[in-house]
Amino acid sequence: MKEKLENYFKENRERFLAELKSFLKFESISTDPAYEKQCRACAEWIVDHLRSMGLSDACLLETSGKPVVFASNGAEATDATRVIFYGHYDVQPVDPLELWESPPFEAEERDGRLYARGAVDNKGQLFYFLKALEYLINNDLLNCSVKIFLEGEEECGSPAFSALLDQWRARLAGDVLLVCDTGTHLPEVATITMGLKGIVSLTATLRGAHCDLHSGLHGGIAPNPAQGMVRMLSSLHNADGGIAIDGFYDSVVPLSSGDRELALSHPLTEEYYTASTGVAPCGGEKGLSIAERGGLRPTVEINGIGGGYTGDGFKTIVPAQTVAKISCRLVSGQDPAQSLKLLVQHLEKNTPEGLTLEISGEEEGGPALSLSSESGAIERAAEVLEDIVDEPIAYLWLGGSIPLVAGLVEVSGAEPVLVGFGLPQDNVHAPNESFMLEQFRKGFIFCALYLNSFT
Amino acid sequence: MKEKLENYFKENRERFLAELKSFLKFESISTDPAYEKQCRACAEWIVDHLRSMGLSDACLLETSGKPVVFASNGAEATDATRVIFYGHYDVQPVDPLELWESPPFEAEERDGRLYARGAVDNKGQLFYFLKALEYLINNDLLNCSVKIFLEGEEECGSPAFSALLDQWRARLAGDVLLVCDTGTHLPEVATITMGLKGIVSLTATLRGAHCDLHSGLHGGIAPNPAQGMVRMLSSLHNADGGIAIDGFYDSVVPLSSGDRELALSHPLTEEYYTASTGVAPCGGEKGLSIAERGGLRPTVEINGIGGGYTGDGFKTIVPAQTVAKISCRLVSGQDPAQSLKLLVQHLEKNTPEGLTLEISGEEEGGPALSLSSESGAIERAAEVLEDIVDEPIAYLWLGGSIPLVAGLVEVSGAEPVLVGFGLPQDNVHAPNESFMLEQFRKGFIFCALYLNSFT
Repeated sequence: MKEKLENYFKENRERFLAELKSFLKFESISTDPAYEKQCRACAEWIVDHLRSMGLSDACLLETSGKPVVFASNGAEATDATRVIFYGHYDVQPVDPLELWESPPFEAEERDGRLYARGAVDNKGQLFYFLKALEYLINNDLLNCSVKIFLEGEEECGSPAFSALLDQWRARLAGDVLLVCDTGTHLPEVATITMGLKGIVSLTATLRGAHCDLHSGLHGGIAPNPAQGMVRMLSSLHNADGGIAIDGFYDSVVPLSSGDRELALSHPLTEEYYTASTGVAPCGGEKGLSIAERGGLRPTVEINGIGGGYTGDGFKTIVPAQTVAKISCRLVSGQDPAQSLKLLVQHLEKNTPEGLTLEISGEEEGGPALSLSSESGAIERAAEVLEDIVDEPIAYLWLGGSIPLVAGLVEVSGAEPVLVGFGLPQDNVHAPNESFMLEQFRKGFIFCALYLNSFT
Repeated sequence: MKEKLENYFKENRERFLAELKSFLKFESISTDPAYEKQCRACAEWIVDHLRSMGLSDACLLETSGKPVVFASNGAEATDATRVIFYGHYDVQPVDPLELWESPPFEAEERDGRLYARGAVDNKGQLFYFLKALEYLINNDLLNCSVKIFLEGEEECGSPAFSALLDQWRARLAGDVLLVCDTGTHLPEVATITMGLKGIVSLTATLRGAHCDLHSGLHGGIAPNPAQGMVRMLSSLHNADGGIAIDGFYDSVVPLSSGDRELALSHPLTEEYYTASTGVAPCGGEKGLSIAERGGLRPTVEINGIGGGYTGDGFKTIVPAQTVAKISCRLVSGQDPAQSLKLLVQHLEKNTPEGLTLEISGEEEGGPALSLSSESGAIERAAEVLEDIVDEPIAYLWLGGSIPLVAGLVEVSGAEPVLVGFGLPQDNVHAPNESFMLEQFRKGFIFCALYLNSFT
């Protein structure tokens, strides 16, 4: 079957890419209300595409936010294995736009890669799943039940879908939850993601005077919100890179010793990391390995900071305000609401004299997820992957978050399987996002073989 | 004579304002190369205006940067007192534009104030001097020599004029240097500015990865330039608000005890400061008075900071870089070059591991200036002011800088006199800059009486 799949991919490659390019044209940036219509148009395009693939019940499920695309092969009432596929059609913003070498929403193939916002995350990865499904349907090789849920707010923490999990319990019930939104560190290695971090985030604003002040007349007199912000934010970490928020680590639950060994055996090297990102992997807590810092430890990151004048030339002001966007990635045991509360308390306690702290946009993106290497669905995925790649399978506890997954696992009752084909150099969430097309091909083959293995 | 002046002002008020509004129309933002043509057009407008006032030698003196407007009454060769007037026609940038209640370059009169960028700093203040001169010329009351120098780069540290000081030594020679680019804390008090701070500035950029990274996949692994920046910048000050740069205070020369007493007697109160700015005057070094912090102590201010995403919504990234604009205000004794060097060394020493520091845009805006209350030109200004206002004259050592003044004093051999009529609530350098028209009137009367007092 693998050979047939490879031939089918070769014959249909150009069509697949043309379809994917159409999908990538939609500016489905979920975080910015200006792109509301583009998000819906994108969802509608997928519904049409699923119908054209023969999934006649494809439709939009309305939510309080962006619609969820749903489709199934109608085999649910049988005693076949119920596979749920979860993905998302929304993407991250594209700025700074000037750093893109080709327009982010006009996908361009260069050097074996497809460049576009969403090329990997998650349009590209969900699309190889759809194409695998198409192959199985057309060749009458699909023997399990498949239900697809593609949402439009993953990049914002999935608030609308989260709110509906309980209500959709029956609709979501399943045996295996397949998510293709992760990656691997080297093209020749296949990776099963065993853990996802939880995430919470907020925006902190420090306000001083009611407008920018002349920094000569007011310097040394008015409290400076930019200076207050750097002092407040520098208090979030210790000199050794650890998180200095009181109680933040208290509820962390360590992995079992077997899984911890698996996690720390991840073969990403310093040299490879530096070559692919341009920076040495020396962030975070001193004295811990890359795998431990990236996968097993919570982090607090400043995602953005801005205040005063940073344009050409100079403007000698004491800024009226300074803003920072902060997110925390959580590990097993950490409650999102509690973690957010500890962060807010820390900022309140460290607000400099004379300035006013305003907290806004608090988001609880869900808790961490940590799987066991003894799961049957994972063992089966490993077997399929071993047939596709030569190197041993890597098991990765990931620093990234797919906020809804922990909730989906709980509500669906399904065993989660997270396999993806992204690479560190894909520039996910950054300018010049791209997907290596050879990885796209592997994803297609994996999904087809994996789905075909269920009856 | 005072009464005649008051009547003349009343009769000509509308014409003065109409002319000033024309002057304020020029977008003469010197720091941004995009406004190059507007700066020159503004300078040419002044030349025409000076000629129409009877100063037939008015012309542009070319420099390596923006031209300097020059004019005189041609009386230099006589043994009359030589009064030099220094001002500037350039203005600060106007962003954030959305905070302006009326367009910054379409001056609007509201509630006894004229709102526009430059309404005070310095177009408005230099314009009352020009109108006073016009009165004296028209009424044959000008008995001294007057030379006017209006430059176009004061807001950028006067680099081109500075470079020409030596070459223009003969042209600049004089007895009294009058500058109307300062203010007072209350309308009913007249203030003589006795000190100006020096200024140096730079832009510091911390670079990490070659592009923004996904903060889940890279958080805790990649060094975060926003976090590095807050840690690096928070090291600039001690917990008590003092400057933590090694050796920064070493060369500070304190005032004489008499002048120190005069400086600290400045009557600005906490309540008044808070009411006019919206923020308590609790910045800078703990335990020192407002007058001491504002006028007598050097400061290091963050004028702008920016990195990562701070727009609507959220973008979970480790920013590729973060930038900060930093300026230092210097007091007597501090050498600008040395102070800049100490700042750069401090930043280099505190650059976080894994990140690259780039220093750019280093500007030495000149040293501090500190006058003596025993200067004859100042005593004469005090006498004139006492005739205009009822309250006792205030003597102010100012936190602001007029970068060229120290150099002008040195080269011209003139006694400097700094009298201005700005107010704290004028929003100088900020949105909604405005000049109280009653203060404009006082400036007109002061300049006419002061010039008339010289023979």
